[in-house]
Amino acid sequence: MISSNDKAGHYAVIFTSKKGDDLEGYGDMAAQMVDLASQQPGFVGIESFGEPPFGTTISYWESREAIAAWGRNADHRLAQQAGHGRFYETFALRICRIEDVRRK
Amino acid sequence: MISSNDKAGHYAVIFTSKKGDDLEGYGDMAAQMVDLASQQPGFVGIESFGEPPFGTTISYWESREAIAAWGRNADHRLAQQAGHGRFYETFALRICRIEDVRRK
Repeated sequence: MISSNDKAGHYAVIFTSKKGDDLEGYGDMAAQMVDLASQQPGFVGIESFGEPPFGTTISYWESREAIAAWGRNADHRLAQQAGHGRFYETFALRICRIEDVRRK
Repeated sequence: MISSNDKAGHYAVIFTSKKGDDLEGYGDMAAQMVDLASQQPGFVGIESFGEPPFGTTISYWESREAIAAWGRNADHRLAQQAGHGRFYETFALRICRIEDVRRK
């Protein structure tokens, strides 16, 4: 639940969303995307929290190239289309470069 | 619940934590810190989600200088000490520069 391998120089993708009412198939798709993302080259970790209808997923990557490659994945593109067109009422996605990390 | 004014060039602070068992006073302190943070110069927005004992708070800032100034705030320093010493079993804090933002 806390990503432990991300470090300075890596990238974080912060995806915060408000879902709409038509969520048929959403849960399965979201779980499948987490599973698929975690198998991609350059994947570092993921943290996901929901307080419906809001939620946030922060994924960590070794590089922007790894994020771009995941963005081009065919199954992911279908999920993005479903997300944009149907599941999400609003979202914000930020691609961020990690400059500093502190842990306890 | 979704920060709407953050943009490329701004900074995100991703704070993900696992709380321990001794949480007396935690809720009040956390609410007070959100309130105080939102009054700081350079504060842009905040997103917070909890699935106890885990939680994440993402705050957005205009600059690293604004983050550093907030880190030096006296009340915030007391809260940090309580968090580090007592409330949080584990945490990870990442300071990130936002490079790209997409919204629906």
